[in-house]
Amino acid sequence: MRRTIGWRADGPSTALRTAPLDRRDLRPDDLAVRVDYCGVCHTDVHALSARTGEDPPLVPGHEFTGVVTETGTAVTRFAVGDQVAVGNIVDSCGECAMCRAGQENFCHAFPTLTYGGVDRHDGSTTLGAFCREYVVRDRFAHLLPPGLDPAAAAPLLCAGITVWEPLHALGVGPETRVAVAGLGGLGHLAVKMAVALGAGTTVLSRSPDKAGDARRLGAHGLVVSTDPEQTAAARDRFDVVIDTVSAPHDLGTYLRMVAMDGTLCHLGHLGAVTVETTDLLVGRKSLTSAGSGGLPSTASMLDFCARHAITADIELLPSAQVNEALDRLRRNDVRYRFVLDMSDLD
Amino acid sequence: MRRTIGWRADGPSTALRTAPLDRRDLRPDDLAVRVDYCGVCHTDVHALSARTGEDPPLVPGHEFTGVVTETGTAVTRFAVGDQVAVGNIVDSCGECAMCRAGQENFCHAFPTLTYGGVDRHDGSTTLGAFCREYVVRDRFAHLLPPGLDPAAAAPLLCAGITVWEPLHALGVGPETRVAVAGLGGLGHLAVKMAVALGAGTTVLSRSPDKAGDARRLGAHGLVVSTDPEQTAAARDRFDVVIDTVSAPHDLGTYLRMVAMDGTLCHLGHLGAVTVETTDLLVGRKSLTSAGSGGLPSTASMLDFCARHAITADIELLPSAQVNEALDRLRRNDVRYRFVLDMSDLD
Repeated sequence: MRRTIGWRADGPSTALRTAPLDRRDLRPDDLAVRVDYCGVCHTDVHALSARTGEDPPLVPGHEFTGVVTETGTAVTRFAVGDQVAVGNIVDSCGECAMCRAGQENFCHAFPTLTYGGVDRHDGSTTLGAFCREYVVRDRFAHLLPPGLDPAAAAPLLCAGITVWEPLHALGVGPETRVAVAGLGGLGHLAVKMAVALGAGTTVLSRSPDKAGDARRLGAHGLVVSTDPEQTAAARDRFDVVIDTVSAPHDLGTYLRMVAMDGTLCHLGHLGAVTVETTDLLVGRKSLTSAGSGGLPSTASMLDFCARHAITADIELLPSAQVNEALDRLRRNDVRYRFVLDMSDLD
Repeated sequence: MRRTIGWRADGPSTALRTAPLDRRDLRPDDLAVRVDYCGVCHTDVHALSARTGEDPPLVPGHEFTGVVTETGTAVTRFAVGDQVAVGNIVDSCGECAMCRAGQENFCHAFPTLTYGGVDRHDGSTTLGAFCREYVVRDRFAHLLPPGLDPAAAAPLLCAGITVWEPLHALGVGPETRVAVAGLGGLGHLAVKMAVALGAGTTVLSRSPDKAGDARRLGAHGLVVSTDPEQTAAARDRFDVVIDTVSAPHDLGTYLRMVAMDGTLCHLGHLGAVTVETTDLLVGRKSLTSAGSGGLPSTASMLDFCARHAITADIELLPSAQVNEALDRLRRNDVRYRFVLDMSDLD
């Protein structure tokens, strides 16, 4: 076993404290990665608040960048010193139709999550990247393209791929009218990517005071989603609406802004949602959902971001402030993503 | 005013009785049509059962064929003696974005329904085609292509266009794996059209005894939708699932049979539906809905059906048996569409 140090929740606690962590000895296809930067995602908040006293210890963190410090005997794609990036899955069956199609995130045997998952070989519970070292199967690591700041690039591995997947799958380009609902960690990256894809892009937000940020990110404007006059004026206007709002909400408001033959794509696991079929039927609109992506898509996204100099707008904090970051994220008090600097763990 | 005879529900009654009906004198762009055949649709059953004692008299019927007997002074596309077909809308604003796009069915000012609608000129309540004469604005009538039996073609004007719209909009062709859920009035036409478009087509049904009919209609086979083994084997298998089931039901069963990037299209006004976002997210699947179509699409559908000799499988009854037809339709006791022969009204 290898030994590292990280931020862990034990027993019923939702607060993270430093603790020594075991990492497995390298298998032939493993990399040891020194974790430099890890983003803080809403999923981390949910995972902590869902804990009961009986749950095993939890180490969050699933969008990180770092440097390869050791390679397994069969590794050929990476060398010690390479800058790499890892997202929210670290293994999959590799044999089902989804894995063969490069959609490991939809693996029929369920992908191994970066934390809180079950390792396919030794049955252990995976521990996340709020720590100084992660051991990962080489297939699930990506070379970080040169030119991307490794701190601001860390959120691309979860927030970034989550918004990239639908933009790409829905064929967003210069002819597409895109709206992004919610200007947070996911939303601000969706705006940057849609603008870089050439799409006319609008932000939908309850907060008129985000109009300045929306324009700074390249959007044409902002529709205040609680203003009936503005939403009526935006009826049937967008070919694609990317809905990044994570709290339960009425999808009808957004569906009615979707243009003929357009799509409302909600991101993440919202649970059961209810829609009026009339809101789909009138204008032949579609509802879909997306969350994370497969390995080829993640590689394309990183390449696209490098070519267009896209990273997240981040607030970089020493990892010792992880609990403060989680508290502020619970209040949506971040523009637009916290990233933890793990060097203070040395 | 013109005078005709038809089948009408008065007061709180849901039974239809013959009654004399007024038809408007022809406007310059009107046709008078002798109604020969009119299909019986689930919408007729719903409209009758939704009646209260205060509602105006109701004459159902919105998928009919007949012969032009008189034309308004400005009519150029039709002549007396032409065989024509009319569906469920008979007017629209003509000016909104939807009308300009040939989607009069989505008219922002709401299209005028063939019955129970409000005439845009005189404010009267429209009376349907369970009668011997209908007066219709010429734009909303279609020439019936030669070669289509006028009785069996009548259901194309509602059931037919309703299934054609999504098959066409979703690009169904020889590469598409299509499933049709529910083998009724809509479903059997969806199978015929999907097969004629070259798609490998499967029927999803609770009734294994429909397997023979499914194959006779050209389907490859039938999946019993209540058999967990069969539905599990059909997981991720169809690019397009056309769901014609009108009773409330779990959409998850069908969504899980949709392939990666595929679509579940529900037909008709099911009201509010609930789906698990996971069923959309895993496989990037879409949910949409369709019901009827615009004028250009209806004309294309009639042309397609003429080229492929597609009409409905009907049970033709004299109009005097209309109440029996409605009763049997309430019990789904028809394979696959009742059509009323109006000649007994003479």
